[in-house]
Amino acid sequence: MNAEALLESQRVRREIREGRITGTSRGMAPGFVQCNLAIMPKAFAFDFMLYCQRNQKACPVLEVTDPGDPVPRKLAPNADLRTDCARYSVFVDGERQEDRLDVRDIWRDDLVAFLIGSGITFDAALERAGVPTDRNRWVLRTNRPTEPAGPFRGDLIVTMRWLTPQQAIVAAQVSSRFPFNHGAPIHIGNPADIGADLKNPMFGGPVPDMPRDQTAVFWACGVTPQSAAEAARLPLFIVHAAAHSFITDLPADHLMNV
Amino acid sequence: MNAEALLESQRVRREIREGRITGTSRGMAPGFVQCNLAIMPKAFAFDFMLYCQRNQKACPVLEVTDPGDPVPRKLAPNADLRTDCARYSVFVDGERQEDRLDVRDIWRDDLVAFLIGSGITFDAALERAGVPTDRNRWVLRTNRPTEPAGPFRGDLIVTMRWLTPQQAIVAAQVSSRFPFNHGAPIHIGNPADIGADLKNPMFGGPVPDMPRDQTAVFWACGVTPQSAAEAARLPLFIVHAAAHSFITDLPADHLMNV
Repeated sequence: MNAEALLESQRVRREIREGRITGTSRGMAPGFVQCNLAIMPKAFAFDFMLYCQRNQKACPVLEVTDPGDPVPRKLAPNADLRTDCARYSVFVDGERQEDRLDVRDIWRDDLVAFLIGSGITFDAALERAGVPTDRNRWVLRTNRPTEPAGPFRGDLIVTMRWLTPQQAIVAAQVSSRFPFNHGAPIHIGNPADIGADLKNPMFGGPVPDMPRDQTAVFWACGVTPQSAAEAARLPLFIVHAAAHSFITDLPADHLMNV
Repeated sequence: MNAEALLESQRVRREIREGRITGTSRGMAPGFVQCNLAIMPKAFAFDFMLYCQRNQKACPVLEVTDPGDPVPRKLAPNADLRTDCARYSVFVDGERQEDRLDVRDIWRDDLVAFLIGSGITFDAALERAGVPTDRNRWVLRTNRPTEPAGPFRGDLIVTMRWLTPQQAIVAAQVSSRFPFNHGAPIHIGNPADIGADLKNPMFGGPVPDMPRDQTAVFWACGVTPQSAAEAARLPLFIVHAAAHSFITDLPADHLMNV
């Protein structure tokens, strides 16, 4: 394949693999689906898949690789999941080890990779519909338990956006078109109704007082399964480092009908 | 729970369990989701779930039970999957044994049940939108391979409906609102484009010549995973008998946002 024929997603992944891009994936290869990555031994994969099925608004599984196969054959058939995220976090027995730039040397024949939809994916569609996405967004814990499966359990984690009431309506319409990528909001209005922890946001910085002309809108977040897998204290668990998602070759708008 | 408080789905399941309803589930408990049931040993459940994920338009998994647990805790928490279909088909090493009215005596602690969405579910929504559903519908094999996983593979099976062009448009709109229940059509127009086998329909009787004012519309069908599981020749595989689906307590319209 010559350089001219590369998709922007393929170009970015090559730059990552060759070490020329090392930072966040945010804003990279706009229009292509970015995924949360969760890699674990096959012994835990059935329970994890069950957990994702039972909590599918938080855990939309877009692809699962065969054991030992580092290639996501549907979403990016010439990618390598061991090298094509810019940064990985590795957990051993539930303890976070140092982050790595690739995971080739710890790859095993029994590892299964889950590619899970990310809310970032519909940002471009929101922007086109006039809904700003570049600020006033936080990832928060709630007190709503997820449905457990095997060792995987925990409270739902959500993305909160502050929008005007009109933007909130449009955002509900647009996100509903992405049912396999968190879909419609799970809540609109008072954060306390779902026990959203405004005091300790996981991402997005401190939450100020909300302006009177804004409404809080909440979506189930793909950090939920990652958090459940961390808490399960697996012997080995590998994820993309925060904000260093895996970039697929699937145009985001195609997710409306997969 | 007294009789007055029973949902129609619960009432019908009780009649089935007590042997007073033994026929098809078609037309029973209208408005409630009916599911295809697939039960197999846990040893095969991960590969089967992978197969369903990889072919999700044909195989929308709505619930998976814990091993040995015959209760679908989300979709019908007071049901028993061993008794609440009116008729079961049992396959041993890929050979179909006699059908059974219940499967209590062959239930095992390692059995996992998959509840898979059925196209019947959006019939009521189609009817409300003016699209007739009571005739001109067939289940057909195609020559389009599904994405394999482990021992599970086979060609896509589809539901074909004949509709007027206007009805076809409305049917595409309405079914798109049920992304977890086969969703939008996979094809409109010439059956030969997808190798649909009009000569040997699996259900619906012989296919006559199509009237000139009609259009053929095709949806991925939940018989696909059942057929793949039969072909995999599992040591034990239990399904609902054709047209004797499992009736859940979930209102079909709720499937638009699950």
